[in-house]
Amino acid sequence: LEAGDAETIDRLMEPLHAADIADLLEQIEPWERRELIELWHGGLDGEILSEIEDNTREEILGYLSPEQLTLAVRELESDDVVDLVEYLDDKQQEAVLDYLEPLDRVAVETALSYPEESAGRLMQVETVRAPQHWSVGEMIDFLRAHPENLPEQFYHVILVDPRMKPVGNVTLGRIMSSKRSVKLWDIKEDIFVTIPATQDEGEVAYAFNQYHLISAPVVDEDGRLVGVVTIDDAMIVLSEENEEDLLLLAGVGENTVSDKVSATVRRRLPWLAVNLVTAILASLVIAIFEEAIAGYVALAVLMPIVASMGGNAGTQSLTVAVRAIATKDLTGSNVLRVIRRETMVGLINGAAFAIVMGIVGIVWFGSPMLGVVIAIAMVINLVVAGLAGTVIPVALEKMGVDPALASGTFVTTVTDVVGFFAFLGIGAAVLL
Amino acid sequence: LEAGDAETIDRLMEPLHAADIADLLEQIEPWERRELIELWHGGLDGEILSEIEDNTREEILGYLSPEQLTLAVRELESDDVVDLVEYLDDKQQEAVLDYLEPLDRVAVETALSYPEESAGRLMQVETVRAPQHWSVGEMIDFLRAHPENLPEQFYHVILVDPRMKPVGNVTLGRIMSSKRSVKLWDIKEDIFVTIPATQDEGEVAYAFNQYHLISAPVVDEDGRLVGVVTIDDAMIVLSEENEEDLLLLAGVGENTVSDKVSATVRRRLPWLAVNLVTAILASLVIAIFEEAIAGYVALAVLMPIVASMGGNAGTQSLTVAVRAIATKDLTGSNVLRVIRRETMVGLINGAAFAIVMGIVGIVWFGSPMLGVVIAIAMVINLVVAGLAGTVIPVALEKMGVDPALASGTFVTTVTDVVGFFAFLGIGAAVLL
Repeated sequence: LEAGDAETIDRLMEPLHAADIADLLEQIEPWERRELIELWHGGLDGEILSEIEDNTREEILGYLSPEQLTLAVRELESDDVVDLVEYLDDKQQEAVLDYLEPLDRVAVETALSYPEESAGRLMQVETVRAPQHWSVGEMIDFLRAHPENLPEQFYHVILVDPRMKPVGNVTLGRIMSSKRSVKLWDIKEDIFVTIPATQDEGEVAYAFNQYHLISAPVVDEDGRLVGVVTIDDAMIVLSEENEEDLLLLAGVGENTVSDKVSATVRRRLPWLAVNLVTAILASLVIAIFEEAIAGYVALAVLMPIVASMGGNAGTQSLTVAVRAIATKDLTGSNVLRVIRRETMVGLINGAAFAIVMGIVGIVWFGSPMLGVVIAIAMVINLVVAGLAGTVIPVALEKMGVDPALASGTFVTTVTDVVGFFAFLGIGAAVLL
Repeated sequence: LEAGDAETIDRLMEPLHAADIADLLEQIEPWERRELIELWHGGLDGEILSEIEDNTREEILGYLSPEQLTLAVRELESDDVVDLVEYLDDKQQEAVLDYLEPLDRVAVETALSYPEESAGRLMQVETVRAPQHWSVGEMIDFLRAHPENLPEQFYHVILVDPRMKPVGNVTLGRIMSSKRSVKLWDIKEDIFVTIPATQDEGEVAYAFNQYHLISAPVVDEDGRLVGVVTIDDAMIVLSEENEEDLLLLAGVGENTVSDKVSATVRRRLPWLAVNLVTAILASLVIAIFEEAIAGYVALAVLMPIVASMGGNAGTQSLTVAVRAIATKDLTGSNVLRVIRRETMVGLINGAAFAIVMGIVGIVWFGSPMLGVVIAIAMVINLVVAGLAGTVIPVALEKMGVDPALASGTFVTTVTDVVGFFAFLGIGAAVLL
């Protein structure tokens, strides 16, 4: 296929949806990507570009000519243009903006003036609005008169007061099923949420999910309508935020399968370095008990079990807590209750595995005392794991740090250190 | 507040949105929950019930009378009713269904006849459809004539052929901005996706996210229209699926912060038990080298570092792979490339940390040979981690097992066993 057969490529790519073409481009090698784009007559349009994930897109944008870029960008809604140009360098950005219609250019520049990952970047500036006193008939006539100015997709008409402040949302369904004389004001929706343009996009996605919004008007600091966020954009943000949490918890930044080796190493090495430091910390604890281990090797054989169980239990508590913080189910009002519960769970699970390990210790090494030592260490470490797994992410959140980012390392460091210290310490005291 | 002051409760709860009331109910103790529901005059309506997460809802449904339930259920769309009753026992389900209007009852029973977590359960049966030959004017007149039969929210009119097969989707925005004489067929959307009623809800959510759908018609096995799935429901599924992956990877089933101690223990203990077995497996490897450890205690001090680094690197590869499988970015066509990349990344990271650990071994224990041993073991374990972290989830997926479910344990078992074996084995051979 990559033998330069442009016709076959055209035929194969033609029926594909933009999103699928984007996926295809992500899954092939960089050189294949470049060749494919050059050979393909369909041309990389804006829709495909906005579907491609960030890292790959940056690479492609690097070798597109300004003309190709501009052609691609022209047909997009303002929010998609923003999404495309926000990661370009200043020169490329300038070049693209130059080719936009003046009105579109202002729209994109306004959006770019809001902070990254804010509602202002997410919104489209094309809104469908009406004075609050309009009737259904007036609205329909207005829409029919200016079909070319309408966004491609819209679901609500936003009612605004004379100072352009949004005062209500009317669904198109209600408008279409009402008589021409009905006032829009009388059929507006019960739930009406406006979003400040500077609000974090994660908060926006949360509001959409929590209140089942379909679209919501975005307002500037004076409360005036500046754009609208729609649920499809919120859905993408939600999915990205979830992915981010998952990847952060595993200690991989924005790593995806389409990253190159060098990018992957760059993203993972720092986390492994942090882990190395904490692993050495745990080893220092073991080193304290070198003599005990030399005298009683069974301690060395069993010590990873205590640490591993603690690490696992801690990760369990941690993940539930991080997730609950993200969905606002873990708040000041129930944090004490959750900590109490995690401690109880640690105690019960600890006791259960203490019995099992006690028996293993006795049967394997024939030493009842060794069984007692590992049982006590197990209970201690699982209680500590439950506590650390909840307290650490809550504390990080309070300090303004993303709890998904750093919790994992902290929690496993705590369970490693406590696990080795408890087991080897009690073991050294009792068995020697 | 819980001193029985019903008036204050009413005043405080009145301005809250159903979703926020649901959150409130989830965050308090079970006895507080029951008391609050009894005291509160606003009454638990269906909307609040459908917002509450499964475990808490089951508990509440347990003590609501059939009358309260029925009242709550009447105002809901069919998909929300299904969501409510699908987890009730047969008797309760029967009682609720008895109180529904005959038509609604049929709708709910039809949905319940589809498998759990399928599009059929997710859809609402209330659709807005039109014969494919209708014009904009005919459509508007029809909607105005029967406003009472319309779903609360709808975004498209589905065009159907005479045998009720959906043939196109028209957005309300296009209808409203077109002249009365325009044919609906001529303004239908380019993208048109129909969903089989038996399709898994995860696939449905994927399609919505991939193709930016707002609503999509659901068809039975003969291709006839039976309902419609809307993006807000798809968004909830997407968010649930992501949560599930995250929790499964951490070895906690459907555990949430509002679970009781007993439920939490029940959900976490089995995973810890599996971990215990694998930890004992790793200990058996260590036991093979008891003599070496007794003769050279530094091996015991350093061995957790090799295992821990391998476990971390494996989790990194694993998480990226699991996520990519979920978003269909890791497929047969690029799996070999990803495996090659992971091996390379393991090699590079392994080499980097091999150098660091080699120096640590020399400086800390004054033994160049020990440095060489830990360096070699580090490279081996990080390469294996990269391989296992990718191959294991891919293989599980191929075998039809959810890769998020079991991968973590497999991967860390591999890295523990290989880590201990490589380090202690080479150490025993070289140092003694």
